[in-house]
Amino acid sequence: MSDCIFCKIVNGDIPCNKVYEDDTVLAFNDIAPKADTHILVIPKQHIVNLSATQENEWPIVTKVLQSINTIAGQEKLEGFRVISNNGEKGGQEVFHMHWHLLAGTKLTGF
Amino acid sequence: MSDCIFCKIVNGDIPCNKVYEDDTVLAFNDIAPKADTHILVIPKQHIVNLSATQENEWPIVTKVLQSINTIAGQEKLEGFRVISNNGEKGGQEVFHMHWHLLAGTKLTGF
Repeated sequence: MSDCIFCKIVNGDIPCNKVYEDDTVLAFNDIAPKADTHILVIPKQHIVNLSATQENEWPIVTKVLQSINTIAGQEKLEGFRVISNNGEKGGQEVFHMHWHLLAGTKLTGF
Repeated sequence: MSDCIFCKIVNGDIPCNKVYEDDTVLAFNDIAPKADTHILVIPKQHIVNLSATQENEWPIVTKVLQSINTIAGQEKLEGFRVISNNGEKGGQEVFHMHWHLLAGTKLTGF
């Protein structure tokens, strides 16, 4: 997707503060963190969101979730919250699936 | 898990306002909704959270996420947010994996 900012980050056309990378997944610090730790975890492949995930793409989504555990261990997070927004009315701002990985203070309630 | 409130809901020992059910997944309305729509989507099998998910349990987690799409369609949600808290310091209150499915007003920001 030539106009997708996250695809540009995956391709290296836009820099990021990388936290984790493997063949399937990229994770980087959110530029406007909402918590002490605020990492965005994305599939390298352009998948719009959960709703748009095709049958053959679910293994990718599963790998993204598994990588969150890896990242939580790497970053020594004692607890964390994962959030994904689906669709404009769900608060999604970039239409490339991303999981917010939040940790630190202020994680009670929503 | 005999002392797990969500296992008791799965077993029918505690009632719930059921939204969706299949062989693997149960979804019911949160008793203290934080949005117009606030559904809890859980695996019937007792899995503590993402961090505690065992290798052979990932297909269950994937089915839970897939069911969120089914539920979003069933409930005619135009957009939605999914949240899962991991560990006490991640804001987890019931130690049986659950995904908050939120929709309606107030879904900007976190």
